[in-house]
Amino acid sequence: MRAEIVAVGTELLLGQIADTNARWMSERLADAGIDVTNHQAVGDNLDRIVEALRLAAGRADVVLVSGGLGPTEDDITRDAIAAFAGQPLVFHEELETMLREKFRRWSTTGAMPKSNLRQAYVPQGARWIVPDRGTAPGLALRVDGTRMYAVPGVPDEMQEMIGGTIVPELRALAGGDVIVSRVLRCAGMGESAVAERLADLFASSINPTIAYLASMGEVKVRITAKASSRGDAEARADPVVAEVRARLGDVVFSADDETLEQAVLRLLNVRSRTLACAESLTGGGVGSRLTAVPGASASFVGSAVVYTAEAKGRVLGVPADVLAAGTVTEACALAMATGARDVYGADVALALTGAAGPEPHDGAAPGTIWVALADATGFTHARGFVSRGKRDRVRRWAEQAGLDLVRRHLEGVPLPRTSLPE
Amino acid sequence: MRAEIVAVGTELLLGQIADTNARWMSERLADAGIDVTNHQAVGDNLDRIVEALRLAAGRADVVLVSGGLGPTEDDITRDAIAAFAGQPLVFHEELETMLREKFRRWSTTGAMPKSNLRQAYVPQGARWIVPDRGTAPGLALRVDGTRMYAVPGVPDEMQEMIGGTIVPELRALAGGDVIVSRVLRCAGMGESAVAERLADLFASSINPTIAYLASMGEVKVRITAKASSRGDAEARADPVVAEVRARLGDVVFSADDETLEQAVLRLLNVRSRTLACAESLTGGGVGSRLTAVPGASASFVGSAVVYTAEAKGRVLGVPADVLAAGTVTEACALAMATGARDVYGADVALALTGAAGPEPHDGAAPGTIWVALADATGFTHARGFVSRGKRDRVRRWAEQAGLDLVRRHLEGVPLPRTSLPE
Repeated sequence: MRAEIVAVGTELLLGQIADTNARWMSERLADAGIDVTNHQAVGDNLDRIVEALRLAAGRADVVLVSGGLGPTEDDITRDAIAAFAGQPLVFHEELETMLREKFRRWSTTGAMPKSNLRQAYVPQGARWIVPDRGTAPGLALRVDGTRMYAVPGVPDEMQEMIGGTIVPELRALAGGDVIVSRVLRCAGMGESAVAERLADLFASSINPTIAYLASMGEVKVRITAKASSRGDAEARADPVVAEVRARLGDVVFSADDETLEQAVLRLLNVRSRTLACAESLTGGGVGSRLTAVPGASASFVGSAVVYTAEAKGRVLGVPADVLAAGTVTEACALAMATGARDVYGADVALALTGAAGPEPHDGAAPGTIWVALADATGFTHARGFVSRGKRDRVRRWAEQAGLDLVRRHLEGVPLPRTSLPE
Repeated sequence: MRAEIVAVGTELLLGQIADTNARWMSERLADAGIDVTNHQAVGDNLDRIVEALRLAAGRADVVLVSGGLGPTEDDITRDAIAAFAGQPLVFHEELETMLREKFRRWSTTGAMPKSNLRQAYVPQGARWIVPDRGTAPGLALRVDGTRMYAVPGVPDEMQEMIGGTIVPELRALAGGDVIVSRVLRCAGMGESAVAERLADLFASSINPTIAYLASMGEVKVRITAKASSRGDAEARADPVVAEVRARLGDVVFSADDETLEQAVLRLLNVRSRTLACAESLTGGGVGSRLTAVPGASASFVGSAVVYTAEAKGRVLGVPADVLAAGTVTEACALAMATGARDVYGADVALALTGAAGPEPHDGAAPGTIWVALADATGFTHARGFVSRGKRDRVRRWAEQAGLDLVRRHLEGVPLPRTSLPE
């Protein structure tokens, strides 16, 4: 089964937003074993949308259209689909009732703007998908053997319909094969080193398949198996997952597609420990990532962002002689960690200091990073290393290295050592 | 002049990455007055790339291709362009020399992998664009009246060539008209309110044009003028910019396309003041944004992330009776601000507390936010309001409201008041 994605919206062509919907849909379709061969984006222009639909329908079995189902006059995907299918738009009272009911619940006046009535029209012969979060119904129809679906462009509303209705329908059509996909997430090892350890598995394994995806400070290994039942697919995937885990060892921080910060919070929770941070070069990035996870307050108590040398002394009690010897040093990172532990009264503390660049900072070359750990038993550990790249990248690497240090400490696996020259 | 963008890379179709290059290029082309009518994405498949090029060349004057110029075997954009143009690939010694020189400087061994020699081939009759950051040369050629450019898919390398070479070439071709674009960025007023104040200007102004773009907690107003010289274009734009500024007043925080955090740091710098924060619901997001700006340490000293009630007491000295009465309150926000000011010894302090959701927090409904300010003179101000939306959105609104409070205080313009019901 071949699928194509058509995004509708002049804002895409003006560069006001990126087409993140196409990425999300493609990932879900790939998980379901459906090949996506092309993406297109067109503006809010009837002829160009029809041209894009014709092109897509000519080469794909399934066409997914996102955007242009809203209530305003530049929302013309309904019209374009009707024109392409050669069908009139038909008004449905049930949809009007559904829309009015939503406004009765949501709006302060309870009244529905007249323009929303546009959303009660559906091309003749098409089904609709009832929206939960938004007001725009999705559309589903067949045109000359091609299945065509239209979903709203608002990401939440799109995801609800693609994930809840469309992918399950396509999965059922795709011959009933069940796809099981497992993602192992790794920190502290580069993509080429991960690939080298798995080279023979990668070369020999067709079902399940193995794929890599590297992003800053992290490598994902995805193992995907197909079979006629979930049990059979799992039976194919599981031994390969186990083999990959065994080969990669403690660099795997999650087998459940968790982020590193989610893994850290889970481990803190399981071990009933609290965490505090002391952040210099990351400026609050570690705290921000941890607190983006709902429920973080069960184990994350806070982070002292201490951006200047003076703040490191005042807030965390880093001694003056340590500060005088340099803030991008092992001694400063350790003093920040013990300071954060004591100021917050946390069980574990993580400190991050470094020179994010583009200029050297306090005698340290851009990219130099120290991360350090201190816990309530008096245990401490520091690691210094150099990250390549620009400011954003250096800060991100520091966050990953810091969170991974906490993760390893909580799991009781070996902590990485300093790789800086003496 | 009509342009089309073709992205090449199977990773796009698998949903591993979003096509952010198309967004960036589209924005630059729009700034240059060039219409982008279509985006396409295809995988690393020769026939499909050639098909995409044929389609694009058939309907656009300029085709920009990104990706597939790397050294590995799945990088086949060079081959596809040669096949489409009906030209052989020709080896260029100058390119080999350029590549070897880069490896001599960058690599520890100084040796160039053999595969990089692929990057020394150029379709006959095409020019190349010498890369600064990467190794892949860009390509430029004409095929039957269509101008075609190929650039690497790595964002840094793509931006270097599009911004440095290709857009200036296209601008010169587009009739020599100079485009002057000014962006006014606004905080504290919604898009519809901004649009209402400018409705008649928007309707009547053709050159310059006025456009809006809203993102969370911010509205951009873009004024774009075209003329045969820069001076004439500025003479057209400037009175409209002045009129828009006058109508919007103190909601405009920057006329130089600065972010809100850049504007705050600029004002702190000009006024020789330092800033500290106390963050609860934002978890370090404000500190992270401020420190993403190089040179932030000149005026930003740090941020006490105090995620639990206990941390608010221990680190910032928020009194026990205040904490007992609730942490999402005016009193708690004010005590956090004065605490951060005193702990860090800063001239100005900003505090943020709230219920990010999805659950209520400490008696406050999800979306409830308090931001507060305290300065060294003893001045304090607090503002409470409710943000709609999910956790990420609530946190972002809190950051915007907090940074805008500091901006207004430093500019000496009125501070917004609480909009919570009594």
